[in-house]
Amino acid sequence: MGAICVFRGFMPFVYLRTIRFADTDAAGVVFFPNYLAICHEAYEESLAAAGIELKTFFRKHDVVVPVSKSQAEYLRPLTCGDKTSVTLTPALVGTDSYAIDYAVHRLGRPDKLAARLHTEHVCISSVSRERRALPAAILAWLKRHSA
Amino acid sequence: MGAICVFRGFMPFVYLRTIRFADTDAAGVVFFPNYLAICHEAYEESLAAAGIELKTFFRKHDVVVPVSKSQAEYLRPLTCGDKTSVTLTPALVGTDSYAIDYAVHRLGRPDKLAARLHTEHVCISSVSRERRALPAAILAWLKRHSA
Amino acid sequence: MGAICVFRGFMPFVYLRTIRFADTDAAGVVFFPNYLAICHEAYEESLAAAGIELKTFFRKHDVVVPVSKSQAEYLRPLTCGDKTSVTLTPALVGTDSYAIDYAVHRLGRPDKLAARLHTEHVCISSVSRERRALPAAILAWLKRHSA
Amino acid sequence: MGAICVFRGFMPFVYLRTIRFADTDAAGVVFFPNYLAICHEAYEESLAAAGIELKTFFRKHDVVVPVSKSQAEYLRPLTCGDKTSVTLTPALVGTDSYAIDYAVHRLGRPDKLAARLHTEHVCISSVSRERRALPAAILAWLKRHSA
Repeated sequence: MGAICVFRGFMPFVYLRTIRFADTDAAGVVFFPNYLAICHEAYEESLAAAGIELKTFFRKHDVVVPVSKSQAEYLRPLTCGDKTSVTLTPALVGTDSYAIDYAVHRLGRPDKLAARLHTEHVCISSVSRERRALPAAILAWLKRHSA
Repeated sequence: MGAICVFRGFMPFVYLRTIRFADTDAAGVVFFPNYLAICHEAYEESLAAAGIELKTFFRKHDVVVPVSKSQAEYLRPLTCGDKTSVTLTPALVGTDSYAIDYAVHRLGRPDKLAARLHTEHVCISSVSRERRALPAAILAWLKRHSA
Repeated sequence: MGAICVFRGFMPFVYLRTIRFADTDAAGVVFFPNYLAICHEAYEESLAAAGIELKTFFRKHDVVVPVSKSQAEYLRPLTCGDKTSVTLTPALVGTDSYAIDYAVHRLGRPDKLAARLHTEHVCISSVSRERRALPAAILAWLKRHSA
Repeated sequence: MGAICVFRGFMPFVYLRTIRFADTDAAGVVFFPNYLAICHEAYEESLAAAGIELKTFFRKHDVVVPVSKSQAEYLRPLTCGDKTSVTLTPALVGTDSYAIDYAVHRLGRPDKLAARLHTEHVCISSVSRERRALPAAILAWLKRHSA
């Protein structure tokens, strides 16, 4: 497919996010569970950018892809008004599962890594809750953003 | 029904709630939208106490009773660890609607009124979104706690 | 001041906001207290656009401007992925207070008014909690966006 | 100190928590970041039970003990109205750090394990952000609840 395609074969998704007052807690910084919610926003945005309808994807599909595991490493506090970027890199794990790595940077001169997160997702039937193969739209999204 | 029944005919619902770190913001106090969420907890608890199944009431009923309006007056800041009481007094408005008054007190010697809230609820079909008469279980809950 | 100044004399602030999964509840739509948080984001963004440092404004100033009252009217449900605009119009109330009107529209063809909100803010000393005159930066922000 | 003391030497802290509408998302179940917030409530309650003043502990101490890492395994969905227990077991890691294991059970006949979480905490100076020895009150809390 040529050099440019090899070069563009891997394209992590980048989401820009300003830290909001609602994200913070009485310690004056982002409440640690909210990092997961902020990364989920990046995930939503990347799905929408791949043409996936969020309204149905997170709600009424035959199959759902709940988060089965999460990990987070909190490296630097973030405060209201901070500009951040969330870099999302998904990876296929099996025919019914994928994982996502997130890096949250506080933008500045220079940018600083503020947190690293990781989530794992398993595709299941919304009725029986048995494992199901990933839908084609998700496979396309994975192909677009995976290493 | 006798004096004691007249006396007990009106019984506001009281919900005890400790302020959590998750409720607070970088100003060190409860983030103002969270007062509405805390009052909604009191509402849920009062419905559950009246035998209403929350799982279906807030989700899959033919009819739903969304909040159509809210008002709040924030009188005193609340901080993590504060013990509060939420006193809930509902009132029938029409055959398809009711309102709820909430008083949030910070418990102490003496208790202090921290906030007053008010919500209005309209019963609608979950499909057509047209107005519907309130279900019997809600009428019973209203009778139990109204002035 | 001339025609162009009259034309530009009044400029409400408009904030674009995609509805996130974190905003929703088990009824499938935005949880009603979150409308207040979404409007507060518009407020933060308008303050930042006026050169006000959010980190200190919401935290360490000698004076703070907490929300004393709020009102909301919920007209249409919003769901994950919806594109909305929040139009913010502040108004000076007294030397120590202002109010803000918010209109939340779901963007589409045509746009639909989804909610109307109103907040009132009182400037107080962060130590004594007595009323204080509004800081100059807030007066400039009010002038910029008031009718 | 005798058999009964050996038996009671280890006492995990148990926190009872009803799932609230505010905890849920449009998939109808608890939004996964909120498990961390729910476990943090158990942590707050256990600190308060050990006589630690939450208002200052999470805010104005010379030393603060932010969460440096978290892990979660989501095993069963929880819905509005579910009664749960959160069992908290802390462990000393070093002179300046500790970890907490959480097990969230959905109460019923029988109880079901719904999630397992783990957080790591590092004690630092709130000014220099350098590591500091854990305060005596935290060591007492750890002794009380550690295995």
